[in-house]
Amino acid sequence: MVFERKDLLGTRDLSAIEIRSLLESAESFKEIAERPLKKVPALRGKTVVNLFFEPSTRTRTSFEIAAKRLSADAVNMSASTSSLVKGESLLDTVDNIQAMAPDILVVRHRFVGAAHMIAERVGARVVNAGDGANEHPTQALLDLVTMSEHKRVGPGLTVAIIGDIAHSRVARSNIWALTTLGVTVRICAPPTMLPRELDKIPGLIVCERPEEALDGVDVVMMLRIQLERQDRLLFPSIRDYARVFGLNRQRLDLAAEDAIVMHPGPMNRGVEITSEVADGSRAVILNQVSNGVALRMAVLFLLGGQGHE
Amino acid sequence: MVFERKDLLGTRDLSAIEIRSLLESAESFKEIAERPLKKVPALRGKTVVNLFFEPSTRTRTSFEIAAKRLSADAVNMSASTSSLVKGESLLDTVDNIQAMAPDILVVRHRFVGAAHMIAERVGARVVNAGDGANEHPTQALLDLVTMSEHKRVGPGLTVAIIGDIAHSRVARSNIWALTTLGVTVRICAPPTMLPRELDKIPGLIVCERPEEALDGVDVVMMLRIQLERQDRLLFPSIRDYARVFGLNRQRLDLAAEDAIVMHPGPMNRGVEITSEVADGSRAVILNQVSNGVALRMAVLFLLGGQGHE
Amino acid sequence: MVFERKDLLGTRDLSAIEIRSLLESAESFKEIAERPLKKVPALRGKTVVNLFFEPSTRTRTSFEIAAKRLSADAVNMSASTSSLVKGESLLDTVDNIQAMAPDILVVRHRFVGAAHMIAERVGARVVNAGDGANEHPTQALLDLVTMSEHKRVGPGLTVAIIGDIAHSRVARSNIWALTTLGVTVRICAPPTMLPRELDKIPGLIVCERPEEALDGVDVVMMLRIQLERQDRLLFPSIRDYARVFGLNRQRLDLAAEDAIVMHPGPMNRGVEITSEVADGSRAVILNQVSNGVALRMAVLFLLGGQGHE
Repeated sequence: MVFERKDLLGTRDLSAIEIRSLLESAESFKEIAERPLKKVPALRGKTVVNLFFEPSTRTRTSFEIAAKRLSADAVNMSASTSSLVKGESLLDTVDNIQAMAPDILVVRHRFVGAAHMIAERVGARVVNAGDGANEHPTQALLDLVTMSEHKRVGPGLTVAIIGDIAHSRVARSNIWALTTLGVTVRICAPPTMLPRELDKIPGLIVCERPEEALDGVDVVMMLRIQLERQDRLLFPSIRDYARVFGLNRQRLDLAAEDAIVMHPGPMNRGVEITSEVADGSRAVILNQVSNGVALRMAVLFLLGGQGHE
Repeated sequence: MVFERKDLLGTRDLSAIEIRSLLESAESFKEIAERPLKKVPALRGKTVVNLFFEPSTRTRTSFEIAAKRLSADAVNMSASTSSLVKGESLLDTVDNIQAMAPDILVVRHRFVGAAHMIAERVGARVVNAGDGANEHPTQALLDLVTMSEHKRVGPGLTVAIIGDIAHSRVARSNIWALTTLGVTVRICAPPTMLPRELDKIPGLIVCERPEEALDGVDVVMMLRIQLERQDRLLFPSIRDYARVFGLNRQRLDLAAEDAIVMHPGPMNRGVEITSEVADGSRAVILNQVSNGVALRMAVLFLLGGQGHE
Repeated sequence: MVFERKDLLGTRDLSAIEIRSLLESAESFKEIAERPLKKVPALRGKTVVNLFFEPSTRTRTSFEIAAKRLSADAVNMSASTSSLVKGESLLDTVDNIQAMAPDILVVRHRFVGAAHMIAERVGARVVNAGDGANEHPTQALLDLVTMSEHKRVGPGLTVAIIGDIAHSRVARSNIWALTTLGVTVRICAPPTMLPRELDKIPGLIVCERPEEALDGVDVVMMLRIQLERQDRLLFPSIRDYARVFGLNRQRLDLAAEDAIVMHPGPMNRGVEITSEVADGSRAVILNQVSNGVALRMAVLFLLGGQGHE
């Protein structure tokens, strides 16, 4: 099973076969985290650079642990200390890193398309770890790994994604991946948080009210309200948002009896999700995190083990 | 020699046997730092996460070097870049890290009991690298390793700890460990820096004046005046503090002829200790640092080599 | 081929034989970056500490990658998080690091002579990664490695260095190294950016106008205008600087037909160099970066493989 692309930039262009191949590969890496010795020599002698132009601990740590468990040399570069503060252009920075002969660049940047631009520029493999509100493919893939533990991810499955869809790269990557696999996706958000461009995707249904989105659904994915990014207020108040869109016990009862609850984290407890639901038996939120390491090991392995050898 | 606890959270609950076991183990790791190749495969395939919610280079570096010399994968996470800035709760952050299957978490946090709370929550082993003014057990243990190089650490030994006892986790962890081993501990501080709760510990003597504390003592441990933490002034002026409580040559002459001088660092030269004393032949301050790496290797080894295998 | 010094602090004191020995060694490490597995066990069990008191990503990353490809344990310490913020002296910080038994310290500091002071103090090998406006020897050596790919670096070669010579450690280290090898060096800068102390170096020619410096030259090295460091303005305006001193196509035509163009980076495009030239066929700017990793592997290997074994 080989992933034939040079880079993993998004889920939008992935075929169903490619997605299934990535998920299967992640399955085989899950077992490693349960070993006493969580290390395989798969990427020994490979250099993985985590190039984060936006602050992140969670995703960076997940990639760093994944790289180290594959025996790669992991190097962290963050924007705050980088030459960018000296006014260097992004492409010059990237050219410089490429000149140090890394094998894989894991890139997060606040601009849409940053990872794509970098991938075109460099010989190293590029993994998009989030570009603005565009894509965050490893998050969507780890979400699918998690769904697969409970459901058959394909036609017949219905997933509700509720929250700030318009500004969420997590939502976008999930929508592309899920609809490609034939999953029905219902999205629900306040009008100010609803993207326009998604209207005509086959399999995508826009719901006005969360009750409608949740009705009989198999998977509920709540999105984080990015309180820290709201330069303008997209809803009257946090309390109003929680009251109308937040996932509580009563609303969750509208979903299928065996529905699972997901959240990409970090959660705003009491805003988009109550603690009762977040800590309840249907939540698989921490499984998402565990599967993240396995999925990222799979991605790094499929990219890094190919081509350079 | 196996340390039977899941975590190392403090010295308060340790038995004399446990403390002696840790010190002996540290002895065996001292030798590794003197080898040309300072590396053993003891923790290969284990993940050690340094989770520092307070800034620290010294302690973090000591743990990182210890972990790497044991061949563990060491990952640094600091609060400034963590999800905490996005408003996530400490327990959610910790649950997330646990979901990545680390073996050992080394935790520093400004709140008393933070490491204990985390240890109860996670399956990973936890080492408290400082929780507020409560405990900093590896510092106390490395201090004991250092004392052992010069003295028999047990009944008959007298240690003076001078400085801001009330706000010092180093003092607290030393007091518990030393008194457990039967060592007599004299503490001395300005009244505003004297804790109340310590009065009735057997073997602990509160001295009003440093001259009294130093009289014939075997070990002098000076504490750092945390100038950067003093939101309210606990003494009239730094100059007054240095004059009354600082360790200079004359005061040191009151101690036993072969007394050793310790300081957990970083020192404020000219405040709690003069340069003459800090750089003098009786100072073992840098030995403390060296022994810190060995002691931390021992702790990581005893915790990480157990249970998961 | 063994480098007999304890430290690499500058190029000023290096003999021609020592410089050639370092360049040859770098040649042998170049090949490693082109292997599928870019790792050799040369420094396994050695600890390399990157001690950066000035922000740097580029140089720090280059050293970190070099250390990891040699299988050393690489530990990063930066000033912003270090004990220096708690008021500790530089020497106390350094004594503490030495107590943790590192093998090599890579030091960057804004004060001239900082690395020298540290090297005298510690048993560990020290590599100066930049001390104020004084020296940055690995940069000069990687520049020489790059020149060697195109020219015979010795008598008969002429190199023009244009820009803020007075404040440039890159210029200084290049001038010492090049003139030691018998290369003719022409320097050119606005009067406010011309150092005084260099006047009488054999082989060094001060040119008033860039046209004079460029005339028939084999190598053109443009220096970065450190816009962020200019507390006082050293020229009327950036536009004026670019117009009079910037390297553009027309000016480059004054150089030898096969002249190469170098820049230590990060570049201010449109200031000291136009994009046309920077991205042109004569530019070897990214080769400098690639050679940087190889040269630093050579330096770490020559220092770390010696003495401690």
